[in-house]
Amino acid sequence: MDAIWWQIFDLLGTTAFAVSGVFAAISRRMDLFGIFVLSAATAVGGGIIRDILIGNIPPAAFKNSIYLWIILGSMAVITIIVRYFNIRMWRRVVGKLSIWYLVCDAIGLGSFTVTGTLLGCFYYPDYWILDITLGVLTAVGGGVIRDVLAGRIPGVLRKEVYATASLLGSIFLYGAVIPFEVPLEVGAIVSFSVTVAIRLVAIRLHLNIPRIRRVRHRRA
Amino acid sequence: MDAIWWQIFDLLGTTAFAVSGVFAAISRRMDLFGIFVLSAATAVGGGIIRDILIGNIPPAAFKNSIYLWIILGSMAVITIIVRYFNIRMWRRVVGKLSIWYLVCDAIGLGSFTVTGTLLGCFYYPDYWILDITLGVLTAVGGGVIRDVLAGRIPGVLRKEVYATASLLGSIFLYGAVIPFEVPLEVGAIVSFSVTVAIRLVAIRLHLNIPRIRRVRHRRA
Amino acid sequence: MDAIWWQIFDLLGTTAFAVSGVFAAISRRMDLFGIFVLSAATAVGGGIIRDILIGNIPPAAFKNSIYLWIILGSMAVITIIVRYFNIRMWRRVVGKLSIWYLVCDAIGLGSFTVTGTLLGCFYYPDYWILDITLGVLTAVGGGVIRDVLAGRIPGVLRKEVYATASLLGSIFLYGAVIPFEVPLEVGAIVSFSVTVAIRLVAIRLHLNIPRIRRVRHRRA
Repeated sequence: MDAIWWQIFDLLGTTAFAVSGVFAAISRRMDLFGIFVLSAATAVGGGIIRDILIGNIPPAAFKNSIYLWIILGSMAVITIIVRYFNIRMWRRVVGKLSIWYLVCDAIGLGSFTVTGTLLGCFYYPDYWILDITLGVLTAVGGGVIRDVLAGRIPGVLRKEVYATASLLGSIFLYGAVIPFEVPLEVGAIVSFSVTVAIRLVAIRLHLNIPRIRRVRHRRA
Repeated sequence: MDAIWWQIFDLLGTTAFAVSGVFAAISRRMDLFGIFVLSAATAVGGGIIRDILIGNIPPAAFKNSIYLWIILGSMAVITIIVRYFNIRMWRRVVGKLSIWYLVCDAIGLGSFTVTGTLLGCFYYPDYWILDITLGVLTAVGGGVIRDVLAGRIPGVLRKEVYATASLLGSIFLYGAVIPFEVPLEVGAIVSFSVTVAIRLVAIRLHLNIPRIRRVRHRRA
Repeated sequence: MDAIWWQIFDLLGTTAFAVSGVFAAISRRMDLFGIFVLSAATAVGGGIIRDILIGNIPPAAFKNSIYLWIILGSMAVITIIVRYFNIRMWRRVVGKLSIWYLVCDAIGLGSFTVTGTLLGCFYYPDYWILDITLGVLTAVGGGVIRDVLAGRIPGVLRKEVYATASLLGSIFLYGAVIPFEVPLEVGAIVSFSVTVAIRLVAIRLHLNIPRIRRVRHRRA
C-alpha cells in the first residue's frame, strides 16, 4: 500500500490520535514521559496491533521516523498552548476545547478505519472477517491501549456509537472494494466520510446503542 | 491439526466462553457492542494470543467465520432469554444461573487447555514449556483480556483453583502425548475430563491455593 | 546474539525482575499461582513483547527452560524468607527491604535495556526508532504487564525517572554501537551502568520529570 492517498489518511489519523492522546494524558496530570507514552499508544498502538495480526514485522510505526516526529510535534504544540496561554480565556475565544478533542478523535477514527481495512484487503482479500476486524482494531485499538494504561475501562466499551461507526465504515469499504470493485480512492473517501459523519452525528444527538436489562449473577 | 475431534473441542470451548463473556458483559450493563467485544475477547482472545506466539498468522479466529456466528448466536440466545423471560422465575425453574455460568466456564477451560497444548505439540513438540504454556494461555487468556477490558483484576490471579486446573490438564496431556505416545484422542479426552473435574471439584469444595503471609513494602 | 556476556545481562535482568515480581504479588496477597504469574510476567513479559515485535517466534522465554527455573527459584527463596523468618526483625538487620526491591528493579531495568537494544541492533541495525524502542519496551514492558494484571496504573507512567533512564541508556548504546562502532561489550557495560546510575540517583534525589499544568476537558 504505497498509494499517496493511503499515506495521507495514515498521517491524518496519526496526527489526530496523537493530539487526542496528549489531551488525555494532560488531563490525568501525567509527566512528560507519560504524555509521550499515551500519545504514542493512541497514535500508533492500533497500527502495531494490525501489523502483528497480519505478520507485517517489524510494525510500520518503527520503520519510519515520521510517526515519531508527529507525536513529538503534537506534544510540543499542545503543551505550549496549554502551558503558556490562559486556557480559560482561550477556551472562551475558540469555543469549547472538548469539541476540538472530539473532532480530532473522529477524524482519527475515520482515517484508521480506512487504512486498516485497505491493508487487510491488500494482504488477505479473501478473509472478510479479518479485513473488517483490522479496520475496527486499527481505529479503536490505540484508544483501548490508552485507556488500559490510564487505568480506566476502555471508553469504546461503554460509550456511544464509536466502534460502531468504524464497523459500519469498514463493512462499507470492504463491500465496495472487493465485491463491487469500486476504485480504492472513491471507496476510501466515502468510507472515511461515513465513519466521521456517523460518529459526529451520534455525539450531537446523544445516540446510544441499546442496552440489555441487567441480570445479576455471581462469579465465584 | 485438522482432526475432527480437535475441532469439536475448539468449537465447544468457543461456545462455552462466548456464553460466559455475554453473561459478564450483561452483568456490567454494557451496550450491544460491549457485549459483542467481551464475548469475542473471551471466546477467541486466548486463541489469538496462542496463534501470535506460534507464528500462525493471521490467527485462526479471523480465517473461519464459524467463530463469528458462534459469538453472534450466543449473544442472540442469551440476550433474548435475559430480556424476554422473567429471570427470577426462570432461575427458580432451571436452578441457579450462576451454576450454569460456572459449568460453561469450566467446559471452555478444559476444551482450550486441550486445543492449545495439542497445537503446541504439533508445531513445536520439543519445547515443553511452550506447549504447556500454550495450553494454559489459550484457556485463561481470553478471560484475562475480558477482565482487563472490563476494568477489574483478572480473576485467575485472585480466585480459586482455575489456571491450576488448566496447568495440570496441560502437563498431563503433554506428558501422555509426547513421551508416552498415548493416542491423541485418548489423551485429549482424559485431559479435558481432568481439567473440568478439578475445576468443578474446586468450586464445590471451595478449595484455594495457599497464600503467603503479607510483607509490606513500598514501591517508590 | 549468542555472546556470553549478552546472556549474563539477560539472566541478571530476568532474576532481578523475577524477584521484584514476587515482592509485588506477595504485597497484594495473591496466591501461589498469582505470585508465579506476576513474577513470570515481570521477568519475561518484556522479552516476549520484544520477540513478537521483531518476529522471533516462538519467543526465547519459551525455548529455554532456564527462565522457568529462575522464576521458580526466586519464588521459593523469597517466599521461604517471607514465610519463615520474622520479617520485622529481619528488616531491622538487613535494612529496609524496599531498598533491595528498588535495587533489584534498577538492575533489571539496566540489563534489559542492554539486551533489548542489542537484539534490535542485531536484527534491524538500520531502524533506530525500533532498536531504541526495543530497549525501553524490554526493560519496562514486563513491569507494565505486571501492573495491568495487578489492576493499577502502570507505575512507569506516573512515577519518577524510570523509563527515562532506560531511554537514555538505550540511546547511548545505539549511538555507541552503530555510528561510532564501539565494541559491543564496552557499550553494553557503560549503557548498563548509566541506566542503573540514573535510576538510583533519581530515587535518592526524588527527581521527577516536569508535569504540565492541568487542563480540564470532558470526553463524551
